[in-house]
Amino acid sequence: MKVLFIGDIVGSIGREAVEKYLPRLKKKYEPDVVIANGENAAAGRGITQKIYQQLLQMGIDVITMGNHTWDNKEIFEFIDEAQYLIRPANFSKEAPGKGVVQISKNGHILTVINLHGRVFLPPHEDPFRMADELVEEARKISPLVFVDFHGEATSEKIAFGWHLDGRVSAVVGTHTHVQTADARIFPGGTAYITDVGMTGPYDEILGMKKESVIYKFQTNMPSRFEVPKSGRDVFSGFFVDIDNETGKATFCERIYINDDYPFQG
Amino acid sequence: MKVLFIGDIVGSIGREAVEKYLPRLKKKYEPDVVIANGENAAAGRGITQKIYQQLLQMGIDVITMGNHTWDNKEIFEFIDEAQYLIRPANFSKEAPGKGVVQISKNGHILTVINLHGRVFLPPHEDPFRMADELVEEARKISPLVFVDFHGEATSEKIAFGWHLDGRVSAVVGTHTHVQTADARIFPGGTAYITDVGMTGPYDEILGMKKESVIYKFQTNMPSRFEVPKSGRDVFSGFFVDIDNETGKATFCERIYINDDYPFQG
Amino acid sequence: MKVLFIGDIVGSIGREAVEKYLPRLKKKYEPDVVIANGENAAAGRGITQKIYQQLLQMGIDVITMGNHTWDNKEIFEFIDEAQYLIRPANFSKEAPGKGVVQISKNGHILTVINLHGRVFLPPHEDPFRMADELVEEARKISPLVFVDFHGEATSEKIAFGWHLDGRVSAVVGTHTHVQTADARIFPGGTAYITDVGMTGPYDEILGMKKESVIYKFQTNMPSRFEVPKSGRDVFSGFFVDIDNETGKATFCERIYINDDYPFQG
Amino acid sequence: MKVLFIGDIVGSIGREAVEKYLPRLKKKYEPDVVIANGENAAAGRGITQKIYQQLLQMGIDVITMGNHTWDNKEIFEFIDEAQYLIRPANFSKEAPGKGVVQISKNGHILTVINLHGRVFLPPHEDPFRMADELVEEARKISPLVFVDFHGEATSEKIAFGWHLDGRVSAVVGTHTHVQTADARIFPGGTAYITDVGMTGPYDEILGMKKESVIYKFQTNMPSRFEVPKSGRDVFSGFFVDIDNETGKATFCERIYINDDYPFQG
Ligand SMILES: [Fe+2]
Ligand SMILES: [Fe+2]
Ligand SMILES: [Fe+2]
Ligand SMILES: [Fe+2]
Ligand SMILES: [Fe+2]
Ligand SMILES: [Fe+2]
Ligand SMILES: [Fe+2]
Ligand SMILES: [Fe+2]
Repeated sequence: MKVLFIGDIVGSIGREAVEKYLPRLKKKYEPDVVIANGENAAAGRGITQKIYQQLLQMGIDVITMGNHTWDNKEIFEFIDEAQYLIRPANFSKEAPGKGVVQISKNGHILTVINLHGRVFLPPHEDPFRMADELVEEARKISPLVFVDFHGEATSEKIAFGWHLDGRVSAVVGTHTHVQTADARIFPGGTAYITDVGMTGPYDEILGMKKESVIYKFQTNMPSRFEVPKSGRDVFSGFFVDIDNETGKATFCERIYINDDYPFQG
Repeated sequence: MKVLFIGDIVGSIGREAVEKYLPRLKKKYEPDVVIANGENAAAGRGITQKIYQQLLQMGIDVITMGNHTWDNKEIFEFIDEAQYLIRPANFSKEAPGKGVVQISKNGHILTVINLHGRVFLPPHEDPFRMADELVEEARKISPLVFVDFHGEATSEKIAFGWHLDGRVSAVVGTHTHVQTADARIFPGGTAYITDVGMTGPYDEILGMKKESVIYKFQTNMPSRFEVPKSGRDVFSGFFVDIDNETGKATFCERIYINDDYPFQG
Repeated sequence: MKVLFIGDIVGSIGREAVEKYLPRLKKKYEPDVVIANGENAAAGRGITQKIYQQLLQMGIDVITMGNHTWDNKEIFEFIDEAQYLIRPANFSKEAPGKGVVQISKNGHILTVINLHGRVFLPPHEDPFRMADELVEEARKISPLVFVDFHGEATSEKIAFGWHLDGRVSAVVGTHTHVQTADARIFPGGTAYITDVGMTGPYDEILGMKKESVIYKFQTNMPSRFEVPKSGRDVFSGFFVDIDNETGKATFCERIYINDDYPFQG
Repeated sequence: MKVLFIGDIVGSIGREAVEKYLPRLKKKYEPDVVIANGENAAAGRGITQKIYQQLLQMGIDVITMGNHTWDNKEIFEFIDEAQYLIRPANFSKEAPGKGVVQISKNGHILTVINLHGRVFLPPHEDPFRMADELVEEARKISPLVFVDFHGEATSEKIAFGWHLDGRVSAVVGTHTHVQTADARIFPGGTAYITDVGMTGPYDEILGMKKESVIYKFQTNMPSRFEVPKSGRDVFSGFFVDIDNETGKATFCERIYINDDYPFQG
């Protein structure tokens, strides 16, 4: 099974970048399943039902989230019905929504799991222990398992990747909005990248207008962060080819497209 | 002027990787100046005088440091005499050593500045303001200025890069030990990468044996982190070509070498 | 000179508690100067011009602030004209307002200084170094100096107090909203308390309705914190008597009033 | 049942303060059970078997711990046999030792529970949920339940206290080493104090020599923290009288003894 993952989609520039590049990438990689992190899809803060529907219509099969899950309050109204929208599984038991979803394509079932890191972040449930449980459960159904680990610290993300090596098909990091160059397949067969990076404005800071972010760092004064509506874009993704019998990755590749690194068909 | 920067050298595997790859890279890139971050050179914790000398003898011109500067107490004995060893300039006024050094090669002077981030890190002096002052000072002598910004958060590092765009030749991030894929030249002519990554053990976690790091994340119990003495290596670097007249970067490139991404001569 | 300090006034219950107890305390202690921390005076978040005026009319001479200084945007409009409103002096040079004010009573001048801690808080300018400078400056005019150090960690606050011992008349901590029992005069003559505590709702959590705070800790879900408009109150203060010649404290006392610790006239 | 709790005992000065004051306090309060936090008993860092035995011989019945539990490695050798030594119950399942102990005195059973906060601290298991479970379990045996909540942030500690109000006899905070003045009985019958404070050196910073702590804050340079061996002491405690039938507190009182607040028999 071929899986294409799209890193944190930020605002309208991000959504338009998906619209522009996803068809070309589908032609190039022929993915069976497309997954995208959508925690910043609505103007940088959360997701709305309309945007969720738009992303599905663009050809995305599963949306994952992160620390911005609840930023747009509209999510509380539709998350329970949004079958292919998942938020970190190690959120509180009281949190609405779910953290795992199965998707069936061409006779094969892929389990997608979303988990949240805890270094420099709130004390959610232990993602290592929860991954052990969720992965064991998932593998009873199918060896094809894909994990989006939303975290800040490189140490925690790499530790998490090695921890699951041989038990899942892929672990991709999200949240820092900067793609890392370390895409690889671990010895046990798990494809890994510390962070897929973001899909959105290219000439700003994590997708937010740079002037206000720089002002914040210079002054520690309150500053309103906004997503720009125009400007150049960056598309960040990760492709993995998984053996359907073993669930092991046989090939993986970073996808990083912008004016400095143009799309290569 | 051509500059080659080597990311955080970790332990003996890291030093041996420099010994192995630096000659080949010198042949390929013909750098005028080689800079390396050495904060983890001595078994992952700081640097010793002997290792400082070894690194210079391998062909490194300037060593930068970071949060691990003082881990090996030997540094207090030789830092004042170590002309080409710099530590973050925004450390306390009471800190021994210096944060800026000039190096003259082929008739041109390059200023190398080391600064430290403050997000998820101790409250050192303001690096943005200090950079303004140090850069202004440096440019009175030469427009060739290279900055190693040692920081954790992508937001702070990118903000710092944009902040200096057009005023320095290059800003490279260090500290996360994972190379990012975002090497670029900003519109003002400053070469930039969020993190150069590390040079050391390839199959561990930030250069530390993975079992003890995973145990730490699983249990929050005390755990002794150690650098392995054998195993595969990774070399992470960054090359930039700078116009001697303007100080602007004309070309930059990530260097990432390991068994998955072999050296390309 | 006798000084009465009132800890963080929270919302309308806090302001009403000042109205209720200040007259009694003035009768009891006969303070020459009354200082209050007002960072939470406007519904828990910042201060408005109207509330600033009200507090002065109640008999408060100087208002200090803290991390909530800018929560109510109205402050940007009046802070420059508000002579007796100070915010932490180690805020950015770009921040409006000032961090020091002098007040003259009965022929003696008291300097009031507001500073902000940095442990578990943003990296403001170094409060230790800035205190050294501001105190030296202040003592050229008068040995009577009162410092409100707004900080979280007990270690930082106690270190700060000892650091200034013998150079200022009093160091009082604010911010945790819980009064500490350690009021004392250090050997050098500086009156000290780690935290004065808050003046506001007694049966809530730091002045915020307890249900929403508990829900936050139980779930890590978004939760709206609100200051209640009715309920029992707590008044927290600190009294110090200062020798006008030496600037040294000769007496200090915690003031803690609520239904469990009734006012003692 | 009458319970006397002693706040974090720090080093030899702390142990000697217990030796000096405990007999007098036993005469004054006639406690049935004495509990003490011992996480800093061995030179400020953890506890040894010898010190554990000494504390029991001084008349302490139960020792609780905190973030310094594992500082002295000797604990791994004796914790499994130390019947009346508990460490936070929400430590990892892999951690040795236990977090709950029952003690029987005069025909009544008291359950002592130790839990750890998570604000500004590592992401241990959720203390709120775990408290719910442990308290329910404990109350099947006896309504007498005493909780030492080892935490940093006042918000978390007060939230925790209110959360358990009516279900346990007392919640006392430890860890900040500064006693708070807010001892009270909540409406549901739970005695509460945000922090009991420490028992150890009076003229230092949290029990550590003040020069090195101030140096750390001034410079962000490495600094060795040491517990002094001589100097004045402070004793910090909390007394609670509990109704044996209901488990509700009927009386509680802070105990704070030093040269500024002498013992009152
Ligand atoms: Fe995120
Ligand atoms: Fe994101
Ligand atoms: Fe570092
Ligand atoms: Fe490093
Ligand atoms: Fe505050
Ligand atoms: Fe406050
Ligand atoms: Fe502690
Ligand atoms: Fe302690």
